[in-house]
Amino acid sequence: MLRSVLYVDKFSPVPFYRQIKNQVRDAVDTGIWVAGRKLPSERELLTTLGVSRITVRQAFSELVAEGYLTSSPGRGFFVAARSPAQELHALVSHTEAMREGGVEPSSRVLTCEVQAASPAVARGLGVSPGAEVVYLHRVRLADSVPLTIQQVWLPHAVVPGLAEVDFTTASLFELLRERYQVQPARAETVISARPADPDEAGELELGEPAIALTVDQLTFDEDDRVVEFSRSVHNPLRLPVRISQSVATRSGAAGLLARASVERR
Amino acid sequence: MLRSVLYVDKFSPVPFYRQIKNQVRDAVDTGIWVAGRKLPSERELLTTLGVSRITVRQAFSELVAEGYLTSSPGRGFFVAARSPAQELHALVSHTEAMREGGVEPSSRVLTCEVQAASPAVARGLGVSPGAEVVYLHRVRLADSVPLTIQQVWLPHAVVPGLAEVDFTTASLFELLRERYQVQPARAETVISARPADPDEAGELELGEPAIALTVDQLTFDEDDRVVEFSRSVHNPLRLPVRISQSVATRSGAAGLLARASVERR
Repeated sequence: MLRSVLYVDKFSPVPFYRQIKNQVRDAVDTGIWVAGRKLPSERELLTTLGVSRITVRQAFSELVAEGYLTSSPGRGFFVAARSPAQELHALVSHTEAMREGGVEPSSRVLTCEVQAASPAVARGLGVSPGAEVVYLHRVRLADSVPLTIQQVWLPHAVVPGLAEVDFTTASLFELLRERYQVQPARAETVISARPADPDEAGELELGEPAIALTVDQLTFDEDDRVVEFSRSVHNPLRLPVRISQSVATRSGAAGLLARASVERR
Repeated sequence: MLRSVLYVDKFSPVPFYRQIKNQVRDAVDTGIWVAGRKLPSERELLTTLGVSRITVRQAFSELVAEGYLTSSPGRGFFVAARSPAQELHALVSHTEAMREGGVEPSSRVLTCEVQAASPAVARGLGVSPGAEVVYLHRVRLADSVPLTIQQVWLPHAVVPGLAEVDFTTASLFELLRERYQVQPARAETVISARPADPDEAGELELGEPAIALTVDQLTFDEDDRVVEFSRSVHNPLRLPVRISQSVATRSGAAGLLARASVERR
């Protein structure tokens, strides 16, 4: 039983539900409570902690939303299995990174076709509106669990025939390098968050409130041409983004150069 | 009038509200509609587009939640002013970066004191639970607008006297370098998103649903000791995170090294 770990300080200015929440987060973060461990029942907590049902429910429902707990109807609450954060390999094949992490990557392809560039896509890619672009829209999965929805646009002139590829298992970056001799050399990435569309929430199995972690990227080749414009929507619990940066050279604060090393795991 | 730009294709399988939303996003993303521009009134749109009030409301409320529009009671909807994304300078003073961006940084300090490390903090910093740590909890503002809430823990032994500093304008990284001769050399950063706590939503002026973009970081010095553990909660619309990576050296796919260059803006 975990009973002895949770307590409520009635004299603290911190709301009771927040005290419970912090203790659970600490226990999970520090590895004291491991994935799959069952929490005490609501009834037990009401008795041992002397708090109201609404207090326990608020703490637990927020912990579920944050990915610390899962609830199983009729069985209670459990410590959730959390995915390790994934390194942002802006220039490395996601497919390859997942394989090296020991999971089997695959994609459910929603669209893969040649389209006319919308104004926003044309601006991103640096082509004229209406120019032909290859549009790939796919849900990326690891061991059949959906992690992210990715929309990618590439100039058709750079990747003729790409729209005929079966992207269920193909790696876009491998194809760029091997079939088209395009070497991704630099990337600009913007990460933010927003409410998920209902379609996105369904695809990514998001709980309520449905929150999308968004990763938009422009990838440039060695001649600094944009070769890819992508917008990805991650399930924030399943695919947080990890970045490693280190100081490479330094000549005063103005010469600071941070480096993200792509660690092989 | 913008009337001519918005249209609805009644034969498209895309829901009407989504069609309207996509067109507004495209117009804002491409710079065709600039910040402050007024949108047609709900009544005008009902007439010109021939759609229901609920369709227009759904499109506009989602666009407000995503930061594309702002609503002004009684005046209507306007294209929102959007902050440019901020480069993730894991190892550069945020204060300095903001000053160079032409905005005046400041902080509202909520807590700054010596505490005993909780299990989670102790684990992050690599100290014993209960060891003395300096805890700094502040809201960081740019030109008085709140952007992020930051919690930072540092081993007290490394930064004696730090808790006495007035962090309203002081830069933590400058102090580390100049007063304590601590050189941040490497950082591990994890970015995700979750529902914001009510306190966080209030501090950061988040709309509904209140979404927090979270940036957790461990900073290491040249001897690879952890010198700082921080958890930041960003307003995702005001402070998205931008990262630049480029290929520095390459010796086959396994030798890929991506580099994040800290661009001075």
